[in-house]
Amino acid sequence: MKAVGLIVEYNPFHNGHRYHIAQAKKVTGADVVVAVMSGNFVQRGEPALLDKWTRAKLALEAGVDVVVELPVFYAVQPSHLFAEGAVRLLAALGIHDIVFGSENPDIDFISLAQQAPKVDSGQNFTNRNQTFASSYAQQLADTTGFELKEPNDILAFGYARAVLELQVDMRLWPIARQQAGYHDDDFGPDQVIASASSIRLALHKHKLEKIVPVVPENTLAAVQNNANTIDFEASFWQLLQYRLLTDTVGQLGQVYQMAEGLEHRLAATAAAKQGPQSYQSFIKSVKSKRYTFARIQRTLLYTLLNIKVDQMQAAMQDPYLRILGFTSQGQQYLNSIKREAALPIISRVDMSLAKANLRLDYKAGKVWQLLANQATEEQDVGHAPIQL
Amino acid sequence: MKAVGLIVEYNPFHNGHRYHIAQAKKVTGADVVVAVMSGNFVQRGEPALLDKWTRAKLALEAGVDVVVELPVFYAVQPSHLFAEGAVRLLAALGIHDIVFGSENPDIDFISLAQQAPKVDSGQNFTNRNQTFASSYAQQLADTTGFELKEPNDILAFGYARAVLELQVDMRLWPIARQQAGYHDDDFGPDQVIASASSIRLALHKHKLEKIVPVVPENTLAAVQNNANTIDFEASFWQLLQYRLLTDTVGQLGQVYQMAEGLEHRLAATAAAKQGPQSYQSFIKSVKSKRYTFARIQRTLLYTLLNIKVDQMQAAMQDPYLRILGFTSQGQQYLNSIKREAALPIISRVDMSLAKANLRLDYKAGKVWQLLANQATEEQDVGHAPIQL
Repeated sequence: MKAVGLIVEYNPFHNGHRYHIAQAKKVTGADVVVAVMSGNFVQRGEPALLDKWTRAKLALEAGVDVVVELPVFYAVQPSHLFAEGAVRLLAALGIHDIVFGSENPDIDFISLAQQAPKVDSGQNFTNRNQTFASSYAQQLADTTGFELKEPNDILAFGYARAVLELQVDMRLWPIARQQAGYHDDDFGPDQVIASASSIRLALHKHKLEKIVPVVPENTLAAVQNNANTIDFEASFWQLLQYRLLTDTVGQLGQVYQMAEGLEHRLAATAAAKQGPQSYQSFIKSVKSKRYTFARIQRTLLYTLLNIKVDQMQAAMQDPYLRILGFTSQGQQYLNSIKREAALPIISRVDMSLAKANLRLDYKAGKVWQLLANQATEEQDVGHAPIQL
Repeated sequence: MKAVGLIVEYNPFHNGHRYHIAQAKKVTGADVVVAVMSGNFVQRGEPALLDKWTRAKLALEAGVDVVVELPVFYAVQPSHLFAEGAVRLLAALGIHDIVFGSENPDIDFISLAQQAPKVDSGQNFTNRNQTFASSYAQQLADTTGFELKEPNDILAFGYARAVLELQVDMRLWPIARQQAGYHDDDFGPDQVIASASSIRLALHKHKLEKIVPVVPENTLAAVQNNANTIDFEASFWQLLQYRLLTDTVGQLGQVYQMAEGLEHRLAATAAAKQGPQSYQSFIKSVKSKRYTFARIQRTLLYTLLNIKVDQMQAAMQDPYLRILGFTSQGQQYLNSIKREAALPIISRVDMSLAKANLRLDYKAGKVWQLLANQATEEQDVGHAPIQL
């Protein structure tokens, strides 16, 4: 069996993802598709629209054979850490090919990464700050002439660097993105492929009919069934505000990625007499040139999840392969690699695991449920993988 | 000027409180009424129905001359600490008479307290646990033959003990409660006095018309204007659940009054797969014979407010007289005692005070606003006393 790896968020699953799966099989000749997917929170620090089980099921129904969760400590990270985590998991699953969309599919990202300036090795994983991306892009342009600015290219470059750093046998297959640009925030009625962000925007505007042409029927049904989990912002803001008002700045200062006294600004802004009335206006109030929007959002998510630096560092030492679902084909594949898998495979989570290695994902699941007003099932303890 | 002191919660202000004010003046011959009132959270660990400013205004309109806030570190406490805090503030305000309702107004509480067994002096204020009340009541019955079981008598006894302990020159005036028993949870259409708890119950059932005969018009108007702040339970439960799901048991274990591993039970119950769906069912799930209902509620409030043992101990070292409002008569009185007041008088709170001595009240105000969906004004910084 030949397997190909995908690195995905499926927030939500749309026709472009279907194309991605088909192309992945075609270009690599694989008969099994293994996707590493963000769990209940996505890379930009937002709650996923649908929980990880619903999204895993949609993926399996659309042709993926195995869905493995990218743990929250890898998923909610700047692109280079996100990429490194995902490549690590795919390599541990015996995958040797990754197919991904790219704005510049003709680029050999591995060779680009080989020519790229070295990252200061004195910085360890968790210390690299988020401005890494842009300062590094400048160095890269100076050295290689390639301007790394498109989001998918930045991820692709992250995969290549991870392959080199982890010294894994992994071939990277960039494919051209179809039709929709990553940043496009709208799409026309004649389009069959639209970006996930434009689909989310349509959903936030309650324009369900608009997404009909660009998503599979199953996605449509899932968002219809979970309509009340789409608007997280009000409950996110309520809980975040509560956290910022009740923890001391000393406690907030220990949160992962809380840097340069940001905790003081967050606490003061939340407590201000005429303070921001929404999450969006809050982010605008605390945003400065030092931080990207996504960086702020991720820090606020770590704050919401109350994940401290030491907890994050400990969790990142012990990654695992959490299986969310598989087809019978996928099951065969998992059986075939089980003995040589480089990381522990976890199919069932019991309470002791939820309190140990999986504690951050467990906590993230609980908070996701709270944000979604518990309209959803228990996310971890006792939840068996989906079998399709 | 002769002033009489009252110790109140006014949650909400009703006709019985009006009677109390009139009697207080009558029995003592005082011309000024000074009330020490719980702030935004009351003794049983619940948010007050109306914020402290609204309640202070109602009190002034009904004949009180000075309203002083009983800080949260005194107010949300078992009765003996509540009583001691209140007596300390009244004594510091130059008051020498306290009038209060009692189920046994013929009892001389000071003399009862003198005959009472000594409390183990090895236990300091914050270490005395909540079961103090019942175990002490047994000792008291053994020594004096008096059974301390009615809530107002328990408070009265607390006042007496505080007078002796603080060695203040204070006369206690128990007066008979009218008509309504403290625990009565209903009242008839012919009653003009009902208990505060039965009034709250009617409000929770949205039976506004029912309370018309038992409250002043101003109270009726205030609860009508603040209808959306009456039902705190859903938002209280949402935030508490969030806190219990995201803090470690180590962090929860540092909360004031969290004893005997209760934090483990709270965290496990909040995270349970088929966990409680409401605050009431949650309390029932964690309740045991060791703890009274009020004790659990207070501990959960400290948890919600994230008040740690060390913060509580520090705050209790530095009490103050926070003036919420006064009449012109009250202002004259305050001017007359200003120089001899035994504690600092605070009329205006700025940000530096809100971050120092008043930090617990400030935080409590912020959380109260959050629970009330910010339907209310800033509770502390820059808020001038009400002048009537």
